[in-house]
Parts: sequence; structure tokens; C-alpha cells
Amino acid sequence: MCRILAVDAGGTTTRAAIVEPSGHCRGLGLASSGNPISGGSDAAVASLVSATERARATATPGAGDFTSAVIAMAGAGIHAPVEQITALLAPLGLRGPVALVSDVLATFYSGTLLPNGYVLIAGTGAVAGRIEDGRLAAVSDGLGWLLGDAGSGYWIGHRVVSAVVGFLDRRAPQTALTELLLAELHLTATTERRGERPLILLRLVDALYALRPVELSRFAPLAFQAHDDEVACAILADATSALADTLASIWDRGVDGPVVLGGSVLGRGLLAATIPLGASLRAGLDNSPPITVTDGLVGAAVLGLRRAGIRVDENIFRRITGDVTALRDAARRKNSGNG
Amino acid sequence: MCRILAVDAGGTTTRAAIVEPSGHCRGLGLASSGNPISGGSDAAVASLVSATERARATATPGAGDFTSAVIAMAGAGIHAPVEQITALLAPLGLRGPVALVSDVLATFYSGTLLPNGYVLIAGTGAVAGRIEDGRLAAVSDGLGWLLGDAGSGYWIGHRVVSAVVGFLDRRAPQTALTELLLAELHLTATTERRGERPLILLRLVDALYALRPVELSRFAPLAFQAHDDEVACAILADATSALADTLASIWDRGVDGPVVLGGSVLGRGLLAATIPLGASLRAGLDNSPPITVTDGLVGAAVLGLRRAGIRVDENIFRRITGDVTALRDAARRKNSGNG
Repeated sequence: MCRILAVDAGGTTTRAAIVEPSGHCRGLGLASSGNPISGGSDAAVASLVSATERARATATPGAGDFTSAVIAMAGAGIHAPVEQITALLAPLGLRGPVALVSDVLATFYSGTLLPNGYVLIAGTGAVAGRIEDGRLAAVSDGLGWLLGDAGSGYWIGHRVVSAVVGFLDRRAPQTALTELLLAELHLTATTERRGERPLILLRLVDALYALRPVELSRFAPLAFQAHDDEVACAILADATSALADTLASIWDRGVDGPVVLGGSVLGRGLLAATIPLGASLRAGLDNSPPITVTDGLVGAAVLGLRRAGIRVDENIFRRITGDVTALRDAARRKNSGNG
Repeated sequence: MCRILAVDAGGTTTRAAIVEPSGHCRGLGLASSGNPISGGSDAAVASLVSATERARATATPGAGDFTSAVIAMAGAGIHAPVEQITALLAPLGLRGPVALVSDVLATFYSGTLLPNGYVLIAGTGAVAGRIEDGRLAAVSDGLGWLLGDAGSGYWIGHRVVSAVVGFLDRRAPQTALTELLLAELHLTATTERRGERPLILLRLVDALYALRPVELSRFAPLAFQAHDDEVACAILADATSALADTLASIWDRGVDGPVVLGGSVLGRGLLAATIPLGASLRAGLDNSPPITVTDGLVGAAVLGLRRAGIRVDENIFRRITGDVTALRDAARRKNSGNG
């Protein structure tokens, strides 16, 4: 039987699923970052193999092999070692080719089967795309933590830590984010000083510089937790506005279709509800609400089945979505049962 | 004779001078970054040794030895390997102890001999300090490129490159900074595309990620060059406002004294002239204009002589300043003659 391996290699999590032509999903596996840019090529390949092994381990006996693989990756994995990946997946059951697709396209197809539309992703990074005739026609941002990713998890997390550092340094207003950030880093507030500085400021700065910059995205959820705090609200309002700008920059009034929102920041639903799409965007949307998806895994499966020559209809699409959701819930229950 | 070695180990340049009790400066040497935090400890020590060797090489014969050394460094060199430095300076003439002092204090004493006052430095980084009774009583910011240094060279340079990347990605307005940045990186503008992206955007992003983040400070001067450009003006206005906030945060109405401005950004004189010190700061200043200095080398010499038991008066201070300026001009003429 022709089964495909669908992988969504994100900046924080890699997700792998084994999918049949019917849309039934036979196994699901999760691992850490599969993005060669954010974590290095070796770590990305290791995550990919690990997620695939876990997907096979949860599959019913005999249903763990796959004839081809589609891997969704930021920048369509320009720097990904395809030959190395192919060699490593062979002993795990691969019997055919490996294709890399853009995570932007995969996220779009997690939400719809239509050939035209828009997608906006805010996870660790942030990127928007316009899809025409089933292909990526325009893309904006997704240029990484240092130079772009406006409104992303990194972008929010960086502003969260800067606000707290500024407050402890007496340059910025008080914020409820301080307590949340110190707790997250297991630091205890103290009025002690070292030289001319508050000791807690020095400890916090040391703890933050010990992280890789992109790991600051880990503190983005604190801005959502502190939603009554003025500083946190301002950060989220700026993020929303930056994301709307990115989406607006690839808008084409000649291209009509749904807007799919994805990634851990938008998938949270908190920002998604408040994205000010603007009058011109609303007109294009025909007032239909955006479709929210968690990631690009379902879309990677859709693209994988299509590449295998299968016409994916609404029934197959619903089956993929339903099975992926069910397997994810089962994995979550198992994890919380173990924890 | 008791001669001292004065060193200002900055984030971009290390400066060393051999100074006599009279204030006469017998040799001057420059090298690259001497800051262990921005460039690593080994590179910092190498710069320090190299600047010292060059200072000795320019000294009149027999005037290259020194009995003690004072090294000015960010964060007073908390992480600096003092024993290693002492061992390496011994063969270069050192006959006594090595003392580390804060670059903030040294920059203040490059501008004045008074016991009280304020100092604001914006070079690669940015920091402010309040001096009372000749000691650093309060300090603000100086917390590094990722978490602080608001208004610094890095801060300005990062905004310069982000503005250009945003424009080429069609998310931000046109700016004259684009042409300047591409020229600085020897990139040629092209309308070619690769996939959904302008080729020049991809080339620029690759070139910028190849740098260490802190090296973005190299692009700060472009904002001054493009002073007619709206985007560049907004960046400089924000920097000015951030620096004024940092200075304001350590202001104490009970402490009266001059404001010394230092570092490559403020030393440029462009920002210094426009710093909006605010009404409360002006009141404290008695309307006397701030004193602008290039760096902390003269102050390191002042502190070094004081530690050697010498009372530094206005005559000695003027001699140090005059000699350092003359040796610097000579070094610059020699370099441009060779170049």
C-alpha cells in the first residue's frame, strides 16, 4: 500500500505522521526543532529522524512503512541536506523520494483545499504567503529573529525580557511580567545589591545571555498570561499590528480566497481574534473569518498525497484532520498521564 | 621614574598610553576590541597586549616601562582574567600591580577632575553613570546588545539594517539607507528574483547573518550620513530619546556636577548636540553645556596617576589631554600616509 510520511519541521517542534491514501493517519510522532536555521543542520536531522521513529512506534503493526516523504520547512529548507535525510529515512521504511516543501504552503493546506488564498504564520518566527493555483506566489518576512520575524514568538519574547530588564534597571515602568519571568527562570526576587546594581538584575541578565537568542520565544506566552498588564498589552498590540502589516504587504486584490492563520502565537487564538485585518483585507475576505490551524502537518500530508497522484477531496481532508487531532489528543493524554 | 600604563578597553577599539607623573604621555597604541564580553576573553587579552606593545614601540627609548597599569573596561571587567593580564604585561615592562576600573568612571575623568557629576556613553554599547566623591554611585543600562544598550551604536545599526530589510521585503517605506548599506557591504542592487523573493534581499540577509550581531554597530554611521532621510532621522530621534531616558534614570537632584558625553556615537557630536536633556536635567546642569570626550583613555591615566599617589591638578590634566590628542593625530596622519 502507498503510505506517505508527512513532516512539519518547525522552529520549536517537529511533527511526523504516516498517512494512507484514504486520509487515515496511522502514526504520529513529535520531537524538538527541525529547522536547520534555528538549531543547526545536525540537530534538525536528528529531530526529523526522532519524530519519524516515534510515528512508526505508534503505528499499527505493518503500517509503519511509507513509499515517499514530504517535509515542510521554513524557506522550503534551502539549506537542508536532502541526501542525508533520504539515507537516514531508508532504514525507517522509506521506499521512494523525499520532497521538501515550504512550511508556508503546508500551513495553508492545513486549513483549506482551495487553490488561492493567504496564510499568516506566527510561531517562533513569522511569515506570510499568497497562494495562487496551489503554489506559493508571494512571501513576506520569515527573515529570522535578528532581521525580521516581526510579531513572532521571538519578537514578543524579546520585548517581554527587555521590558523586565528595563524595569529592574529603573529605565522602564513597572510590569506584571517581572514576577512571571523571574518565576519562569526560577529566580527569587531580592533587594540585595552588588556594587551599583540590583543583584536580581545581574542574575536575570546572566540567565538570559546563557540562552541562544531565538530561545527568547519561550517567554512569549507570558505576555498572554499578563493580559491585564499595560506593558504586556502594548507588546501584543504591536505584535498584532506588525503581523497585519506583513499580511497586507502580500495582499493582491485580484486574488480571492481564505486567510489561514497558523503557528503557536496565532494558534493560541488570543492574537488571531484581534488581528486588525484592515478595510482592504476585509473586503478581500468577503467578511469570512480566517481559518486557524495549529501547524503545517495536515498540509504536508495533503501535499504528500497529491504528489503520490491522489486527488485529495473534502472527505480525505476531513479524515486527515480528524485523525491527526485524535492522535495528538491521545499523545497529550499519555504524556500528562506519565507526568 | 614612576610611569603608568593607561588602557581603555572598548567594545570596538583598545587604546593604551604610557603616562608620566607630569601628565606627559610617552607612547600611544591602538588595537581592536578589548572587551571580554563582546569578543571573548582571549581576543580581549590579545588586543590589550597588542595596544600596549604599540604604545611601547612609539615611546622614546627607555620610556616604555611602567610601574603600574590601570585598565578601564565595561562592567569594570567582572569577567576579566587579571592574573593572566598581569603575567602578559610583565615582559612588556610592568613592575607593579594591575587595576581594573569601570569604563564609565574613566570616561567621566576624561572630561573633568570634579568629584561629582554624570556620564553618558554611547559607543558600541550605551551606559550612564552618576559619580559621587570620585566613585561610581549609580549606573544604568550597559546591559549588552540583546537586552539593553538602548540608543547605542548596535541599537542604531540594528535599526538601520532592519529598515532596509523591511523595505526590500516591501513591508517598510523606502529609505536612502538602502543604497548606503548595500554599498557598505559591496552588494550590487538587482531586480532579479529567486523564487518569490528579490535576490538582493536574500543576499543582504545572508551577508548580515554572517556577522556577529554586535557587529551591526558598524552600520550606525549610515544613519548620520543619511541625515536628510525620514527613516534615518526617526532612528536617531529614538536613539536620542532612549539615551536621555537612561541618563534621567540615574539623575539625583542632590548631586550637582558636569555631564560628560563619550563614545563613538556621542563623540561624533551629531547626537550630542540634540540630546533633549529635559527640564529637570537642565536645571541640574545650571545650563552649562555637556563636556564631550572621545573615550576613557585620559580618565584611565588620571585614575592611574591617582592610584600611584599623584595629585592630578588642572595642569597635569591638560598635559595628558594635550599629549593624547597630539599622539592620536600623529597616528592618524601616519595611517593615512601609509594608506
